[in-house]
Amino acid sequence: MTNMKIAIDAMGGDHAPKEIVLGVMKAAAQFKDVEYILYGDEAQINEYLTDKTRITIVHTDEKIESDDEPVRAVKRKKKASMVLAAQAVKNNEADACISAGNTGALMSTGLFIIGRIKGIDRPALAPTLPTITGKGFVLLDAGANAEAKPEHLLQFGLMGSVYAEKVRKIENPRVGLLNIGTEETKGNELTKTAFQYMKNQNAYNFIGNVEARDLLMDVADIVVADGFTGNMVLKTVEGTASSVMSMLKMSLNNGIKNKLAASFLRKDLYGLRAKMDYSEYGGACLFGIQAPVVKAHGATNAKGIFTTIRQVRDMVEKQIVETIKAEIHKIDVGGIKNND
Amino acid sequence: MTNMKIAIDAMGGDHAPKEIVLGVMKAAAQFKDVEYILYGDEAQINEYLTDKTRITIVHTDEKIESDDEPVRAVKRKKKASMVLAAQAVKNNEADACISAGNTGALMSTGLFIIGRIKGIDRPALAPTLPTITGKGFVLLDAGANAEAKPEHLLQFGLMGSVYAEKVRKIENPRVGLLNIGTEETKGNELTKTAFQYMKNQNAYNFIGNVEARDLLMDVADIVVADGFTGNMVLKTVEGTASSVMSMLKMSLNNGIKNKLAASFLRKDLYGLRAKMDYSEYGGACLFGIQAPVVKAHGATNAKGIFTTIRQVRDMVEKQIVETIKAEIHKIDVGGIKNND
Repeated sequence: MTNMKIAIDAMGGDHAPKEIVLGVMKAAAQFKDVEYILYGDEAQINEYLTDKTRITIVHTDEKIESDDEPVRAVKRKKKASMVLAAQAVKNNEADACISAGNTGALMSTGLFIIGRIKGIDRPALAPTLPTITGKGFVLLDAGANAEAKPEHLLQFGLMGSVYAEKVRKIENPRVGLLNIGTEETKGNELTKTAFQYMKNQNAYNFIGNVEARDLLMDVADIVVADGFTGNMVLKTVEGTASSVMSMLKMSLNNGIKNKLAASFLRKDLYGLRAKMDYSEYGGACLFGIQAPVVKAHGATNAKGIFTTIRQVRDMVEKQIVETIKAEIHKIDVGGIKNND
Repeated sequence: MTNMKIAIDAMGGDHAPKEIVLGVMKAAAQFKDVEYILYGDEAQINEYLTDKTRITIVHTDEKIESDDEPVRAVKRKKKASMVLAAQAVKNNEADACISAGNTGALMSTGLFIIGRIKGIDRPALAPTLPTITGKGFVLLDAGANAEAKPEHLLQFGLMGSVYAEKVRKIENPRVGLLNIGTEETKGNELTKTAFQYMKNQNAYNFIGNVEARDLLMDVADIVVADGFTGNMVLKTVEGTASSVMSMLKMSLNNGIKNKLAASFLRKDLYGLRAKMDYSEYGGACLFGIQAPVVKAHGATNAKGIFTTIRQVRDMVEKQIVETIKAEIHKIDVGGIKNND
C-alpha cells in the first residue's frame, strides 16, 4: 500500500524525459510506499519506462522551456507538464512535486498555483551545499526573491532549521546569518536588523553571523541570506570550485610526467570532484509553499532524480510543511508583523 | 633625483615591521626615483634597514592594532604610524600611502584625513583578483561601505576603469556590473538602476551584467558591486579556493601511492596555488581619495610589500587621482546628483 503520491515533471531539465524517467524507475524499485505521477509526453516517457507498477502517466504536449519568461510561461502554458504537476498538488491529487526545469517557472507555479504558507511572507529557494567535512549546509534564500526584509530572513531561519533537523537529521541545527563580519554590529541595515530578530526568537538555534570565507568549513548547518546575496554566493562557490578544478586539470595534463603521475591520482581526484558536487544532497527546496516543491538540477541525471525523490519522500513523511506551520508562532519576536 | 615620495606604515600587518622594511629595501634597490618615508618604531625598523639611501624614518611609539575599532582608533591614536603616514599625504609631504594594517582604520584615515575626491560620493576598496587566464580583474567595492546607491556604482566603474587602463595597462577595459543574471532586467532595485546609469555614461566601456559564476573566467576587467556584495564575493572566492586546495592536499596525502605521485606534481601544484594568490597583483586600492591609498594584505611578506610599492609608484606616475577628477563629468548621465 502506498502512503504518498509524488508529482513529477517528466519534461524539465537538459536530459528529459530520459534521465527523469530512469530516475523514477530507480526510485520506484526502492521506495514502494510511493506512487509516482509523471507529467509529459506519454510516448516519449514510455520509451524509458521498464515497469509501470505504482506509476501513472498524465499526457500533455505542452512544456515550459528553460528560456521561457517564468511568470508569463506559467500563465499562458496552462497544460505544461510543470503546471499540471503543481495543479495536482493543489487539488490534493499529489503530496509534493519535483521538476528539473526552469527554476523561475517552478517558483511561480509553487507560489501562484500551490500557494504560500500563512505566516511566511516570501518563499525561499534552498539548495544544500558541500562542506569539506562532507556534511553540507542548507543555504536560503538562494534566489527566489531579489529583495528581502529582516522578517523574511527570520522566517528563512525557521524553515531551514525544520528541514535540517527532520530531513538532514541534524540535532539542534546551527542557523547562521551570512554577513560581512561576525560581530553583531557588522553588515548592512538588513543584516543588522535581522540579527536582532533572530537573536530574540525561540524557534531555532541561532548562532550569529557567519562569514562567506568559512562557508565550506562546516561553520553552520543553515546559512540565511537575502536572495540576491545567496544567489551570488552560490554562484561564486560553483564558479570558483569549477575554475580551480579547471586549473588543476590543466596542470595535470601539462606534459608526460604530470599525466603519468596524475593517472595514479585519478580516482582520488574524481572523489574530490564528487565532494564538490552538491547534487548528492538532492535538489533545491522551495520553502514557504503549502507542499514540498523541489527543483532538481537542470543537468541532472537519473541518480540525481532518484536522490531528489528520496529527499521529497522524506519531506512528506517528516511533515516539513506541517512542522513549519506549527512553529511559526515561535518566531514572533514582538513588533514584527507576519503578514496574512 | 627622486620624483615622488611614498609614506609607509611600517607597523601594520602580521609580520611588521620586519617584512615591511625588507620589502622597502627590495623596492628601494629597484625604484631609484622614489623616496620612502617609514612611520613606526625607529629602533625596530633599523634592525632590518640595510641601506638608508632615499629612506627617512619618522619615529612613533603608537600604532593601530588589527582588532582596534577603526573610527575610534583613528580619532584617538593621533600619533599612530598609519595616521602619521596619512597626515604626511594630507600635508603634501608624501604623494601616496601604504599600510598592511587594520583595513577599516586605513579607510577611515583615507576618508577623514586625506579626504574624498569631489564628485565621488563614496570611496571603494578595490583588490585585484585572479582569473584562470592569469590576467586578473579589479573588484570594487570590496567592502568600504556596507550600503550603496546606484550612483555610487556608476562612479566605481569610472575609478576601476581608469586604474585598469593606466596601471594594469588594459586597453579599453571592460566594466561589468555584478548581478544575479546577465539580462538588463535582472537583479534588485540597486543593480537595475545602476545598469541604466552605467549604460548611459560616456566615460568607460560598460559591458553589462556579469555573473558571479564567471568571475574567474576573465569575463570583465573591472567588476562593480556594492560593498556588501563585493565583500561577500571576495570572501567566497577566497574561502572556496582555499577549501578546494585543502581537500586536494588531503587527497594527495592519502597513502604512499598518492604521496609519490603528488611529489612529481608538486611544482605545478604550487604554481596553481600561486595563480590563486592575488597578492601577486599588489594591494587593494582605496579609490575615491585625494591620493593613492593602498592596503597591502595583512599577512603580506617582503615580496608583497615590494609589489604594492611598485603598484603605488605606477598610480602616482600615471596620475590616477588626477585622471579620475578629469573624467568625472563624463559619468553625468542626467538626473543623477553627484554630491559636493
